[in-house]
Amino acid sequence: MGMIGGGVGAFIGAVHRLAANLDGQIELVCGAFSRDPATSKQTGKELFLDESRVYDSFKQMIETEAGLPESQRMDFVSIVTPNHVHAEPALLALEHGFPVIIDKPLCFNMEEAYAIRNKVNETGLPLALTHTYTGYPMIKEARQLVKSGKFGAIRKVMMEYPQGWLAEKIEDSDQKQASWRTDPSKSGKSGAYGDIGTHAANMGEYVSGLQITKVLSMVKKIVPGRLLDDDASAFMEFEGGVPGVLTVSQVSAGEENAIRVRVYGEKGGLEWTQRDPNTLLVKWNDAPDEIYRTGTGYVSEAAQANSRTPAGHPEGYLEAFANIYKNFAMHLRAIDAGITHNMDVYDYPGIEDGVHGMSLVEAVIESTEKGNIWVNVTD
Amino acid sequence: MGMIGGGVGAFIGAVHRLAANLDGQIELVCGAFSRDPATSKQTGKELFLDESRVYDSFKQMIETEAGLPESQRMDFVSIVTPNHVHAEPALLALEHGFPVIIDKPLCFNMEEAYAIRNKVNETGLPLALTHTYTGYPMIKEARQLVKSGKFGAIRKVMMEYPQGWLAEKIEDSDQKQASWRTDPSKSGKSGAYGDIGTHAANMGEYVSGLQITKVLSMVKKIVPGRLLDDDASAFMEFEGGVPGVLTVSQVSAGEENAIRVRVYGEKGGLEWTQRDPNTLLVKWNDAPDEIYRTGTGYVSEAAQANSRTPAGHPEGYLEAFANIYKNFAMHLRAIDAGITHNMDVYDYPGIEDGVHGMSLVEAVIESTEKGNIWVNVTD
Amino acid sequence: MGMIGGGVGAFIGAVHRLAANLDGQIELVCGAFSRDPATSKQTGKELFLDESRVYDSFKQMIETEAGLPESQRMDFVSIVTPNHVHAEPALLALEHGFPVIIDKPLCFNMEEAYAIRNKVNETGLPLALTHTYTGYPMIKEARQLVKSGKFGAIRKVMMEYPQGWLAEKIEDSDQKQASWRTDPSKSGKSGAYGDIGTHAANMGEYVSGLQITKVLSMVKKIVPGRLLDDDASAFMEFEGGVPGVLTVSQVSAGEENAIRVRVYGEKGGLEWTQRDPNTLLVKWNDAPDEIYRTGTGYVSEAAQANSRTPAGHPEGYLEAFANIYKNFAMHLRAIDAGITHNMDVYDYPGIEDGVHGMSLVEAVIESTEKGNIWVNVTD
Amino acid sequence: MGMIGGGVGAFIGAVHRLAANLDGQIELVCGAFSRDPATSKQTGKELFLDESRVYDSFKQMIETEAGLPESQRMDFVSIVTPNHVHAEPALLALEHGFPVIIDKPLCFNMEEAYAIRNKVNETGLPLALTHTYTGYPMIKEARQLVKSGKFGAIRKVMMEYPQGWLAEKIEDSDQKQASWRTDPSKSGKSGAYGDIGTHAANMGEYVSGLQITKVLSMVKKIVPGRLLDDDASAFMEFEGGVPGVLTVSQVSAGEENAIRVRVYGEKGGLEWTQRDPNTLLVKWNDAPDEIYRTGTGYVSEAAQANSRTPAGHPEGYLEAFANIYKNFAMHLRAIDAGITHNMDVYDYPGIEDGVHGMSLVEAVIESTEKGNIWVNVTD
Repeated sequence: MGMIGGGVGAFIGAVHRLAANLDGQIELVCGAFSRDPATSKQTGKELFLDESRVYDSFKQMIETEAGLPESQRMDFVSIVTPNHVHAEPALLALEHGFPVIIDKPLCFNMEEAYAIRNKVNETGLPLALTHTYTGYPMIKEARQLVKSGKFGAIRKVMMEYPQGWLAEKIEDSDQKQASWRTDPSKSGKSGAYGDIGTHAANMGEYVSGLQITKVLSMVKKIVPGRLLDDDASAFMEFEGGVPGVLTVSQVSAGEENAIRVRVYGEKGGLEWTQRDPNTLLVKWNDAPDEIYRTGTGYVSEAAQANSRTPAGHPEGYLEAFANIYKNFAMHLRAIDAGITHNMDVYDYPGIEDGVHGMSLVEAVIESTEKGNIWVNVTD
Repeated sequence: MGMIGGGVGAFIGAVHRLAANLDGQIELVCGAFSRDPATSKQTGKELFLDESRVYDSFKQMIETEAGLPESQRMDFVSIVTPNHVHAEPALLALEHGFPVIIDKPLCFNMEEAYAIRNKVNETGLPLALTHTYTGYPMIKEARQLVKSGKFGAIRKVMMEYPQGWLAEKIEDSDQKQASWRTDPSKSGKSGAYGDIGTHAANMGEYVSGLQITKVLSMVKKIVPGRLLDDDASAFMEFEGGVPGVLTVSQVSAGEENAIRVRVYGEKGGLEWTQRDPNTLLVKWNDAPDEIYRTGTGYVSEAAQANSRTPAGHPEGYLEAFANIYKNFAMHLRAIDAGITHNMDVYDYPGIEDGVHGMSLVEAVIESTEKGNIWVNVTD
Repeated sequence: MGMIGGGVGAFIGAVHRLAANLDGQIELVCGAFSRDPATSKQTGKELFLDESRVYDSFKQMIETEAGLPESQRMDFVSIVTPNHVHAEPALLALEHGFPVIIDKPLCFNMEEAYAIRNKVNETGLPLALTHTYTGYPMIKEARQLVKSGKFGAIRKVMMEYPQGWLAEKIEDSDQKQASWRTDPSKSGKSGAYGDIGTHAANMGEYVSGLQITKVLSMVKKIVPGRLLDDDASAFMEFEGGVPGVLTVSQVSAGEENAIRVRVYGEKGGLEWTQRDPNTLLVKWNDAPDEIYRTGTGYVSEAAQANSRTPAGHPEGYLEAFANIYKNFAMHLRAIDAGITHNMDVYDYPGIEDGVHGMSLVEAVIESTEKGNIWVNVTD
Repeated sequence: MGMIGGGVGAFIGAVHRLAANLDGQIELVCGAFSRDPATSKQTGKELFLDESRVYDSFKQMIETEAGLPESQRMDFVSIVTPNHVHAEPALLALEHGFPVIIDKPLCFNMEEAYAIRNKVNETGLPLALTHTYTGYPMIKEARQLVKSGKFGAIRKVMMEYPQGWLAEKIEDSDQKQASWRTDPSKSGKSGAYGDIGTHAANMGEYVSGLQITKVLSMVKKIVPGRLLDDDASAFMEFEGGVPGVLTVSQVSAGEENAIRVRVYGEKGGLEWTQRDPNTLLVKWNDAPDEIYRTGTGYVSEAAQANSRTPAGHPEGYLEAFANIYKNFAMHLRAIDAGITHNMDVYDYPGIEDGVHGMSLVEAVIESTEKGNIWVNVTD
């Protein structure tokens, strides 16, 4: 794998590397880690890379690697730059025949999203999007339970993701993460919704198996002077008219990454929160609630295939993240071997999730701008 | 105390009696427990009442008791009938000089609400409304902590109350609770919002110390054929423009009475849920979260005054309910004794909470009827 | 009911009264609340008692009441004095024909225990012991689940009760509770074990349905200068050789009344803790764990009969305590009515629990005194 | 790194590899994965190893690698075989100049333990023991908090580790893990205590900062026909006479790896359980309990240095395990670079933990064999 972005000091780049390392199935062989060649070089050195494969720019990397013999060149590209630097390297990589794994959201705006989708369709190359939270085994289990029909028709979806790290205006200091995430020229139209709302909405759709079709939002800039939203709530209608409520915030002081999803059907419901990621609560009206756990023998094939240890060995965020890398790498190998990849069990978020996620950002922002009205989501 | 409603088989009437009994400060001396004199008689017998003070109607009770010598007659009236039979006995009791304690919501519609308010103002008699959840010691503590300014200015309020008991259309069977609560001629304009949304909103206001000024709702009748809403969500704006989100449901299969409130300020936040009522979570961005507990020495006077045992002896719903009765009785005694009642410590919800709660019902229903638009709350 | 002990400022006496009040089935009609007649008088006044029935001594109370007409005299006696003043009033009450409810432990030493047992057997009068924790609905459920055989043969019992309130030597200040509980002349041979270990052991036996037959203890006086044990652990062998481990402490700084019981059988196990009293965790090796809850429709008759509200209305310590009073009163009524009392459903701890609990105190203390050896428990 | 053991199908070998991979600091370059050369070969292939460095035996591996040029040969050896095959490869590796990382317990018996210790002392080479649980950031924090003196002198240590996986006699089927762990010729003198009791005791010592000096145990073979203990409890005295209680079990049906430690001092206490590994509960008698969390800014340097992501990204078992590998590798690099390794912050369990752990096994077993008497622990 070759990495674009993720230079020394970056948060998400390091996470991508840990995730890629974990299973010993992926090797980082090259990178263009920063716009600053010196930083890129320094990063490559710390990662024990061959100097000759630490590049000054993603353009140089993609073009040079494309020219290497197939057995030597990188197998795919991982893009971990801020949102406004997603599309260009992704398009270039796809054009040069490299599959792409890309941090969410897919890109900066709809135009870019459509361009990437077109390129993916044109090249037929796989693209993965790191909606990490659907990588958790108990989220796989939740999806399978809903799909099994145990709960009957789905009636309500609740999605939330409160954080507190932007409770103060830390973008005014030199907090790297905060600066680009609150800057419309780098993040795009939305702050909190784009950064974490997309995760929560994706989770609601993934577990319920239903797409969001329209939204009515209340998006807020709560910290004075902030340029993008830092708090967002939305009513969301899913296919078939199922109501959903989403609330995300980056100013909920004291909250970590408390993403939580609850889905209710006619006969029962389920609840999952990242605070206790190896537990899935399954609730019934006339029977004891049940505690489903990662690594047990009774969970679905999808849940089992996406955990690494038996029950009682807590798995966390990096393992969930690694599942995307592992399943993506497995898909690439399956393609090489000419065999079918089982996407029900070894799934990962892809281009359609990415485009849809971008459409949701558009719709959520538009709804508030137009006075909190219903806006259809069109991918 | 004399009771109106609460005949054999009623749920909330029995709860009121348990709550009134607990502290040994209130004695049930008479009742008109049912429209059916035989049921009323039977109930009185089971409650060890003097037969002569078990009445055939609330009218008879109020008028007869008013005629007894002051030392013998009931001290106040407790009204535990369905919503459409709140106003008439309340007005009659007040007119005859009896203070009133009344199950929430205050009454059937705004007209009644205003009539009761006028009568209260005219007579100067105390009226208590059983918004039980604000009776919990840790909710008192939450209010005091917010009031202390520890969290800085309040920025967000989240209120939820999911239940699952109406996931099926049980009003079609002979479930007494379900039938009147889903019947517009008995409940009023709203089902779920009126029954439990009013509790959640009251809690949000009580803890934040801020009133809700406008709402944008999404109210749903999810179970086919149901006559009133069984699921309701709302964006709610509090004084000063503070955003809130409320979600309540009676079709969240598998949920008990999972009322939860979260309030966030500039520096920290708090969370309480009835599932773990003696715990108040206090959250900070740069320090360990704290677990405040009922019965400890470090909580506020208000929290201490509203619990009965030292930390480690779980108190529950009945104790919270009993706090309303206890504080109301204490207020009546203070009036008799001509001393001041400390409403900051020994508080209970009153007529203004009741009228405001009714206005919120109106606004929430109107918002959805008009197409999910913002509606101002006018008491 | 007439009460002995529980004067103004006492902790457990007030709890007994709250518990007795709750269900409106028991009326406090008289009392000898203190050795000090003035305190007794003052207490009676605060409790709205008829002055003529507030007595100067328990002797006076029992003898006077015994002389009243049957319809007027107290129905039973409640003894809430320190341990060394249990036996004398209990014996006197029984001799005068009064059933007795008595705070645990039963009494001061074995001699007294046997004397009380003999008197109970001789008179045939009911005696209840307030081992409160077995009054919790979910503990009733636990017992029924074990009894049902669902878990197979029981293999292990874990009992614990950590508290922190004696972490400092507060008996040196004027803390009334601490002084008598750490004073061998008032408490008896044991401090922590006698006070809370007896509860934990009783809970283990109640849930498992097995009696403890021998013990090997490690009893400690951890706070320097303390006269009785403040920390006690024991290996305990139950009938059939089932091993148990008990750990209790009054110096576990920061702990409330964290009594917890875990019982494991061949196929599964269960766990309950007072911190979350309305939840019973049921655990299985090859299936999701289950969460049994107070007030649900699926729990046993015993669990249902000992709760007052539907699921979702937290019940606590006072409700558990009240179950003992309620079931005891129901037993007395059944005797009066000449009908059978269903002790499987409406049970309460009685004389045999009391004597056995005292034997356990003896054995636990003896084991440590003799060098941590196994000691048989002989009732 | 070269690995000994861990062939296809082994549990702990795979875990060691995941842990070693995570940080991208260690590369598996060779292995002798099984006594069966074909299995070893197959494992090597699946791990993308160079065929020439997949060996038929650990002897062959150590000797061959020792002959390679320094820049090519493995840097250290990881031993993940059953207990009876720890000492021989460890001694051989040390003799050939290779540092060793070894799964716990250190070895099969005291004789071997002393031999390894001597060899470590003689060669001066680092040896790490994978007492995984002390690798958790919140356990590091716990140790630092105790060390800081915040809690005052330590008074009590509670250690437990219930599991349920051996509730049935699965060693009779072909469960590989169960067979060797219940076989005295492979596990050594103890089953449950040796396997998980050693972890619990190590945790108690690590957090309290105190060594266990004597034990009185109750060790049981609960499943009929089992050859080694599957349940063990012990009173344990720590330095300074501090009492501890340890309970571990492999027949607690329904339990996962519920290792928990509680330590109490004069002023407060702490509690940690693997079920919620990123939380450390800190308890006080007169102040709200506190929730310390992994990845926060307020925890100690040791806790921060042993986590990889900011608060809100759950870390789990593999991350804790990886900390041992990471810190060990950092130590080896420090030695190479001639700089000091900060063992307070980047610590890992070593030879003394291993020998002491073996002594504890001896003492625990001896205590029960001699009739549950106190036995001194002598390393």
